[in-house]
Amino acid sequence: MSEPFVYLKGEFVAASQAHIAIYDASVVLGATVTDLCRTFGHIPFRLEDHAARFYRSCKYARIAPPLTSAETLEVAQELIRRNSAFLPPDEELALVLFVSPGELKVYAGAAGGAGDMEPTFCMHTFVLPFRFWQHYFTDGVHVVTPSIRHVPPQCVDPKIKCRSRMHWWLADQETHLVDPNAVSLCLDLDGNVTETSGSNFLIYTGNEIVSPSRRNILPGISVATVAELCDELGVTFVERDFQVYDVINATEAFLASTPYCLAPVTKINGLAIGNGRPGPMLHRLLNLWSERVGLNIVEQITMRDGPHSQGD
Amino acid sequence: MSEPFVYLKGEFVAASQAHIAIYDASVVLGATVTDLCRTFGHIPFRLEDHAARFYRSCKYARIAPPLTSAETLEVAQELIRRNSAFLPPDEELALVLFVSPGELKVYAGAAGGAGDMEPTFCMHTFVLPFRFWQHYFTDGVHVVTPSIRHVPPQCVDPKIKCRSRMHWWLADQETHLVDPNAVSLCLDLDGNVTETSGSNFLIYTGNEIVSPSRRNILPGISVATVAELCDELGVTFVERDFQVYDVINATEAFLASTPYCLAPVTKINGLAIGNGRPGPMLHRLLNLWSERVGLNIVEQITMRDGPHSQGD
Amino acid sequence: MSEPFVYLKGEFVAASQAHIAIYDASVVLGATVTDLCRTFGHIPFRLEDHAARFYRSCKYARIAPPLTSAETLEVAQELIRRNSAFLPPDEELALVLFVSPGELKVYAGAAGGAGDMEPTFCMHTFVLPFRFWQHYFTDGVHVVTPSIRHVPPQCVDPKIKCRSRMHWWLADQETHLVDPNAVSLCLDLDGNVTETSGSNFLIYTGNEIVSPSRRNILPGISVATVAELCDELGVTFVERDFQVYDVINATEAFLASTPYCLAPVTKINGLAIGNGRPGPMLHRLLNLWSERVGLNIVEQITMRDGPHSQGD
Amino acid sequence: MSEPFVYLKGEFVAASQAHIAIYDASVVLGATVTDLCRTFGHIPFRLEDHAARFYRSCKYARIAPPLTSAETLEVAQELIRRNSAFLPPDEELALVLFVSPGELKVYAGAAGGAGDMEPTFCMHTFVLPFRFWQHYFTDGVHVVTPSIRHVPPQCVDPKIKCRSRMHWWLADQETHLVDPNAVSLCLDLDGNVTETSGSNFLIYTGNEIVSPSRRNILPGISVATVAELCDELGVTFVERDFQVYDVINATEAFLASTPYCLAPVTKINGLAIGNGRPGPMLHRLLNLWSERVGLNIVEQITMRDGPHSQGD
Amino acid sequence: MSEPFVYLKGEFVAASQAHIAIYDASVVLGATVTDLCRTFGHIPFRLEDHAARFYRSCKYARIAPPLTSAETLEVAQELIRRNSAFLPPDEELALVLFVSPGELKVYAGAAGGAGDMEPTFCMHTFVLPFRFWQHYFTDGVHVVTPSIRHVPPQCVDPKIKCRSRMHWWLADQETHLVDPNAVSLCLDLDGNVTETSGSNFLIYTGNEIVSPSRRNILPGISVATVAELCDELGVTFVERDFQVYDVINATEAFLASTPYCLAPVTKINGLAIGNGRPGPMLHRLLNLWSERVGLNIVEQITMRDGPHSQGD
Amino acid sequence: MSEPFVYLKGEFVAASQAHIAIYDASVVLGATVTDLCRTFGHIPFRLEDHAARFYRSCKYARIAPPLTSAETLEVAQELIRRNSAFLPPDEELALVLFVSPGELKVYAGAAGGAGDMEPTFCMHTFVLPFRFWQHYFTDGVHVVTPSIRHVPPQCVDPKIKCRSRMHWWLADQETHLVDPNAVSLCLDLDGNVTETSGSNFLIYTGNEIVSPSRRNILPGISVATVAELCDELGVTFVERDFQVYDVINATEAFLASTPYCLAPVTKINGLAIGNGRPGPMLHRLLNLWSERVGLNIVEQITMRDGPHSQGD
Repeated sequence: MSEPFVYLKGEFVAASQAHIAIYDASVVLGATVTDLCRTFGHIPFRLEDHAARFYRSCKYARIAPPLTSAETLEVAQELIRRNSAFLPPDEELALVLFVSPGELKVYAGAAGGAGDMEPTFCMHTFVLPFRFWQHYFTDGVHVVTPSIRHVPPQCVDPKIKCRSRMHWWLADQETHLVDPNAVSLCLDLDGNVTETSGSNFLIYTGNEIVSPSRRNILPGISVATVAELCDELGVTFVERDFQVYDVINATEAFLASTPYCLAPVTKINGLAIGNGRPGPMLHRLLNLWSERVGLNIVEQITMRDGPHSQGD
Repeated sequence: MSEPFVYLKGEFVAASQAHIAIYDASVVLGATVTDLCRTFGHIPFRLEDHAARFYRSCKYARIAPPLTSAETLEVAQELIRRNSAFLPPDEELALVLFVSPGELKVYAGAAGGAGDMEPTFCMHTFVLPFRFWQHYFTDGVHVVTPSIRHVPPQCVDPKIKCRSRMHWWLADQETHLVDPNAVSLCLDLDGNVTETSGSNFLIYTGNEIVSPSRRNILPGISVATVAELCDELGVTFVERDFQVYDVINATEAFLASTPYCLAPVTKINGLAIGNGRPGPMLHRLLNLWSERVGLNIVEQITMRDGPHSQGD
Repeated sequence: MSEPFVYLKGEFVAASQAHIAIYDASVVLGATVTDLCRTFGHIPFRLEDHAARFYRSCKYARIAPPLTSAETLEVAQELIRRNSAFLPPDEELALVLFVSPGELKVYAGAAGGAGDMEPTFCMHTFVLPFRFWQHYFTDGVHVVTPSIRHVPPQCVDPKIKCRSRMHWWLADQETHLVDPNAVSLCLDLDGNVTETSGSNFLIYTGNEIVSPSRRNILPGISVATVAELCDELGVTFVERDFQVYDVINATEAFLASTPYCLAPVTKINGLAIGNGRPGPMLHRLLNLWSERVGLNIVEQITMRDGPHSQGD
Repeated sequence: MSEPFVYLKGEFVAASQAHIAIYDASVVLGATVTDLCRTFGHIPFRLEDHAARFYRSCKYARIAPPLTSAETLEVAQELIRRNSAFLPPDEELALVLFVSPGELKVYAGAAGGAGDMEPTFCMHTFVLPFRFWQHYFTDGVHVVTPSIRHVPPQCVDPKIKCRSRMHWWLADQETHLVDPNAVSLCLDLDGNVTETSGSNFLIYTGNEIVSPSRRNILPGISVATVAELCDELGVTFVERDFQVYDVINATEAFLASTPYCLAPVTKINGLAIGNGRPGPMLHRLLNLWSERVGLNIVEQITMRDGPHSQGD
Repeated sequence: MSEPFVYLKGEFVAASQAHIAIYDASVVLGATVTDLCRTFGHIPFRLEDHAARFYRSCKYARIAPPLTSAETLEVAQELIRRNSAFLPPDEELALVLFVSPGELKVYAGAAGGAGDMEPTFCMHTFVLPFRFWQHYFTDGVHVVTPSIRHVPPQCVDPKIKCRSRMHWWLADQETHLVDPNAVSLCLDLDGNVTETSGSNFLIYTGNEIVSPSRRNILPGISVATVAELCDELGVTFVERDFQVYDVINATEAFLASTPYCLAPVTKINGLAIGNGRPGPMLHRLLNLWSERVGLNIVEQITMRDGPHSQGD
Repeated sequence: MSEPFVYLKGEFVAASQAHIAIYDASVVLGATVTDLCRTFGHIPFRLEDHAARFYRSCKYARIAPPLTSAETLEVAQELIRRNSAFLPPDEELALVLFVSPGELKVYAGAAGGAGDMEPTFCMHTFVLPFRFWQHYFTDGVHVVTPSIRHVPPQCVDPKIKCRSRMHWWLADQETHLVDPNAVSLCLDLDGNVTETSGSNFLIYTGNEIVSPSRRNILPGISVATVAELCDELGVTFVERDFQVYDVINATEAFLASTPYCLAPVTKINGLAIGNGRPGPMLHRLLNLWSERVGLNIVEQITMRDGPHSQGD
């Protein structure tokens, strides 16, 4: 079979048949809760943690997925099993979960009108396009702070993974004026560093790995992994607000994200961080992480044909 | 033919065939720009104004629709012509335009990878479900100020009509705890009144009709119409920040929105505004507006079978 | 009779018998709504406006006075009539209205517990102690901006006259470090000028009289009078945010307040405003106001024995 | 004697004779500093800590109580002794201290005018109305986040216990629209969780008990007790900003307050916290606390006739 | 005579001899108040307005220039007369005034220590380097909004022209990452458009010329001139907050600044404003302005040899 | 030789010849990065730390000093060696480093215009005027919180030591209205305590020494020394936001600054801190610090002729 399955509205369907109605709240409101997990050697990594975070997001957003958490885990495993069956061993899957409140009656014509909205629940996979991130590991990532600010928690709490992401789209448009390969690092309304549109952001400075305080960020599972690795390595891991000055003068900086785990950030707003090259702390962390998952994370990403630079 | 057309990716297709890929930025990012227009007697009202606002939103969001503004107007007219052909005379259409940056290559597998994203552009219609708003005119609207705040312009400018609307979804969930029929009236980060998820909000007080200042709201075409009507009626129309106190002590208050034009707000947070009934200024405005469009706006909405209360 | 009457909980009682229980919400929570009116020649000035503002404050605070607005006006007139009967003609009364939610059941023991709280409603008068304000007219007022900020409208709207005034007490303590006779002029959280604890604040600059925008201030009846007088004098009256710079560089500045109408502000933070003396615009306004009320406002205040400096 | 004593202006008087003048700053300005202590078995609990906090509040507010701290402790002990003499053993007293700057000369007529204001200092007791809080322990508390925000420290520092509490009154009015038995949990201006009008708020999550950071809350003596109990139980106690998301997804949540020590919060904005029932951490803490004070805290509160629901 | 004069500390000295001590507050604190005026045909333009603004800034900053305003005007005229004596007719002078609190005693060793600081007052001129701004009129200006925000008025009021401008330096460094010729347009802390480091910023939209509200900007004398010209042209001139959206969708936009009067802004953040070319309103304003000063403003600037692009 | 050397633009020159051009960015923009180190017994204290901080500031400000860090250290040592050669043993030097972007071409006439700006780099010394700080140790410091707020990090990060200090000048002018010897302690925009214009601020409370969080302050080398001393003394050193309340109720408070190391703060806004006298924790810290540097820090400062009170 050449086409992956998608689990949509209670059924496994062929990906090419997986569509969302234009009346769905996911299209009309962006009121979608989501999460994303990946495999290592075709085995999902911390799937339970991702599912738990997904259900926490759903509770906050008051969107009840039609499946229990246990059922979701089961379907997820099944979907990964099916979609990785014919996958080469050096390819990995991302698993995406999302749920919206369902189709909007006003838009849909709403003939009946009596019943409640039924949530649209979907799980699908895609092959991790490693070449998108190869240049992260060869050149390092350039982050840019645009004038657009991160949405504050009294509007939408960044601790939920949701799909109302216009501010990130806008941030990226500004950022790409500086460098088409750069990644937006949004500040909060008070000028604190937060996260990027697709990853958490960490700095290594004064023998501490520092994460922005929880108020402004998704509680990243990769960050949690980093914290555990720090513990093993005897490196202090702390959470506190920091600012652009601290990034400029950090020893190293990283993006932490499910698809590529941990990538070196070597420039901010055109200024080199440290010596402008991926540093030893990155390698210590990635080596330990690689041991945990039984494969060389960086090698898997970079051992492809020619790197690709447009990282959207 | 019993099914309306949808204009999607350059073609008129049957509504039941109009789907969005689960990899589209409209689903994944909520990075969609939209607008909505309605007909009176099957003739679109201020379509040019809606299209102009749509193109201003697109420019801000740096999403280039594949059609020029002139082409969009042409297709819109054609779509309305087609979809209202078999419509009873007392039914009206809403016309929706939206555009997203297109399918995300990372999610879609990104086989080619070379080319740019192609915007997903769609126009569709739906029959205005007047009975959703009947109770607005019989009972008046109850607005509630939730603890959730409106997204500020340094994150996403509220002057664009976009579909990253999770904060509105969250606001409505809170609001419905007070009254399942109530409508959220979000405050900005400084406690100023802004707008509701589907309409502008106006107060009539001290012989002025007051709109919140432009920084916090969509520049409503219905509000622009109200301003013109005020001019004819010799009523002052002003824009300035105001707060919940001013709503509580207003003479009248209104929702201004394309589908139902202008509806009376008779309660805020459980307190009656004025005498708690739709007031004379509302009627003066709606009468004049009805004259303009050649039909009785309120009668058209309310002359249906039994009202409906769940106003989502 | 030598003792004034107080109208308390529905009865006229002698002032010395007018007490509030220590369990009353006015004592325990400061959750009291109030207003204050004065007489000219023993006739209350704009009493209806004060009563209307009082009822707007009550509605906002959801405290329902036991009397209707009409009854309140009647009792107020009666109280002034009684208490001014034996007053010398050159003395004037202040009339105070206040209402609290009533006695708190938890604190009071709350034997019954079934019934609702009964609002504590009181009207009383005091002879205007003109000598407190004499030095305002001879020396001018010195305003100081303390580090304490005005409470913003999303906490308690300054448009209601209420008695949770600890921030004003704190502000005055700081201000008196600079000058024991100075009056606190609080800034809002963004550094805009607001009002003083007992008056509105106005500047005269570039042939405009400017009031801070409505968001930060009590809608003063004296300010409304000034606006009317400006109209007669052909002086522009506007409302907009301004900052300390504008006060420092104003031509004149004023306090507007019911007891003394309009007083010159001649210093801010130790710097002279204009030439540091009461100016011609003040006199034009006060002369016209005096005409309106049929007596010389400043003369009445200043024709007493020795001025007094501690203006609390 | 059937009537409790009140210590007012230097004397023990019968409660029915304890009145505050309508000219007192406590009535006119809400500029009152207060504290509240309770007894266990008629013995005051941590009275010294309450007195120390009271004197810290007084110093901040620059209101000097006429008694030294040592004298206050003595009078407090005496008052409790007197007022608990005829109290049944299963009843307990609350002891209230408060001080205002005294009677306002302008309002009082201010005959003399020369002297300084004399602070009004009062201590009184009331029998703890346990039945008000019974439903906290049977059903759990429902907290609601209103649109009203907590007063920030640059206006009045929440670390002082004062009686300018209009914002809490307003918050409660909004909250009761959702649930007449719910308790307001105000957010700060940045959307962080703070406290309720009568208690501190804590969450238990990830094996930590978390208190909001000190900037936004009264430094609760019950919270200090909880911190000590945590120490004994080997549970981490930390202070940091958190948001509504964290409450929604907490394992348990609590109100900490002098009268009832620690009560379970089982709902926020209509959503169950944990399984929506009082949890095991609550019981561990209350059991240990009960041991400390030599009586079963919950039993004492709940072993009364029929619960009462209006919890003001 | 080949060298211009500088008026420094009370004397006319040769420019090459005009130095500031490294202990001066202007070097150590940036606590300098300044202003800048230019000539048309060697006659200073609105010199009195510039001097008046300078003295308003000085009063705010509590730095007393050693000369009265009248003396300053006299010296300024003399300096212009001297320094333009040998200037070709098509060259013009800028006149700079500045004053600092003087030399800091701690740094200077402060032998005596008794006396007060003596302000350092300086006036100097420079030939307007028109070629720096030629490309403004040929290509239009590109403005960029950096992540750095404008200093708010509760720190330093932007209404004073002062030399603590590090935030502008930082803003420009960020801006030049996008385009080395672009000019920083800083937002305020709430995301409103303010000004650039060297000019006011105006938009023309909906037949109004709009200036940001006064709270955030230097009260530009060029802006005042534009307001007067608008009056003559029958164009509305208003002041209100606006945001990046409004600039993107404006008809035209301008920089208003003493050296070059009014320049077209044709791009913001890479997006064309209007049709991306200098527009007709600019020319109407500059033509009228040119009439006023009796020479063609743009011609004078652009009629030089080859344009220059690095506009610092 | 009786005159100290200054290292300016690559050369050692006599102090009296060390001038800055009036066209230099340090004069025109205040865009100067600086640092300050002192000697103990003519040996510089933590010079490497000061140099490292200086280079971090430079990197943030994108001003590249013409010397490498190593060269700077060398020149600094040489300068101290030269300038302390004839210094009495009980006198000490302060060493100042500063760099500006250089002379501004527009102002300077910009004849050539082609080349880049050349940074102006300077190192100089001054004899520490101990008598300025004597009264700190005899009377204690009085800090006052003015209405002026500290510049937030999204404008200029306080972590760099720069010379755009107008807000500090303004703050001091306000502060001196309360007490001409008082020192400004600015609050941030949220009301948190930050630092003074010349020192860090610390409180000692509940057996912790607390520093404001890093977001608002220069990372003081003296504070770092205090943290190390705390470690030796078994005192907890923490960083967190605190407010005026915490200072008022602290046990002790200190200024930490390079010239005088650590001074007692005994009053805030007129209120005594602790018992209003320098306390034992101060002495423990200073004694240990004195041991480290081999001389009695306080004795050296106070053993001069008559104290001096104007501490600018």
